[in-house]
Amino acid sequence: MAETEAAAPLPPPPSPFYSSVSSRLASLILRIIAFILLLISLIVLGTNTMEINQSKLRFQDIYAYRYMLSTIVIGTAYSLLQLALSIQNVVSGQDGILLLNFFGDKLISYLLASGTGAGFAITVDTKRLTDADPVFELIDIREFYDKAYASASLLLLAFCTTAMLSIISSYTLPKRV
Amino acid sequence: MAETEAAAPLPPPPSPFYSSVSSRLASLILRIIAFILLLISLIVLGTNTMEINQSKLRFQDIYAYRYMLSTIVIGTAYSLLQLALSIQNVVSGQDGILLLNFFGDKLISYLLASGTGAGFAITVDTKRLTDADPVFELIDIREFYDKAYASASLLLLAFCTTAMLSIISSYTLPKRV
Repeated sequence: MAETEAAAPLPPPPSPFYSSVSSRLASLILRIIAFILLLISLIVLGTNTMEINQSKLRFQDIYAYRYMLSTIVIGTAYSLLQLALSIQNVVSGQDGILLLNFFGDKLISYLLASGTGAGFAITVDTKRLTDADPVFELIDIREFYDKAYASASLLLLAFCTTAMLSIISSYTLPKRV
Repeated sequence: MAETEAAAPLPPPPSPFYSSVSSRLASLILRIIAFILLLISLIVLGTNTMEINQSKLRFQDIYAYRYMLSTIVIGTAYSLLQLALSIQNVVSGQDGILLLNFFGDKLISYLLASGTGAGFAITVDTKRLTDADPVFELIDIREFYDKAYASASLLLLAFCTTAMLSIISSYTLPKRV
């Protein structure tokens, strides 16, 4: 097998369906971190409610936060699934489904990137308005946006972790092209 | 070299520093599309100005659009650079710097994903307000957000193209792990 490949001018590369133990362990640790960050971000944003003159301001009232929460929920579910698979892989010493890791990590990291962008976009511009206007000191709307800001920051960290995971899963990808 | 690797229990895979002609051509076409989409998106957002009662509303007044424009500018510059390198690679039949492609495409696609998220986040929620309020029929602010929406849609398409490029460059990545 190896000899025939070495003889061919442009041989299809052998597909090494394995990754080293260290990369599996690194993946496991990063997946734990991503899951924890996403879970806290989910709780902070999901419980973000504020009363203004008998009516409530909730994160659902702003479409950007709805989208942000959707990405967090999908990210958390995916992290939990991958965490279970990672633990199994580290214990058994086997590789998981490398193609699932590659496309899963890529898709989820893009989702989290867009969710982070959406979260910060709506928060930063609205905070500028509410922080500048003294009216909002009384009705305490600032706390609502501070919490959203905290949630977006956690989501940003979770995105960075998932982007690192995506780099690792790209390196362990069996070659096709 | 090939024999010693075949004998080892967990050998480092050989690094095939090449990609097929078809993948190079596909990359070139995708890079042309990405560049055109980003350029139109840049023009649409960059020229988005509106007069309201002697004062001007420009995209710079909204931080989310500033961020969005930054990602578009960086994306356009990167696309142009990669386009030049791609043409050179197709003509010479050689591969470019695969590691630059991999990390470049990854970084730029994340940037465009967050820019798309930011653009849509601020546009969708503001459009809901301005479309519902009859006051804005007179001062024509809706056109401003319609243009921003168009720019964000083009950016979304450009992001999709860059994400595809990132998948291709992951497959042509020399393995390390």
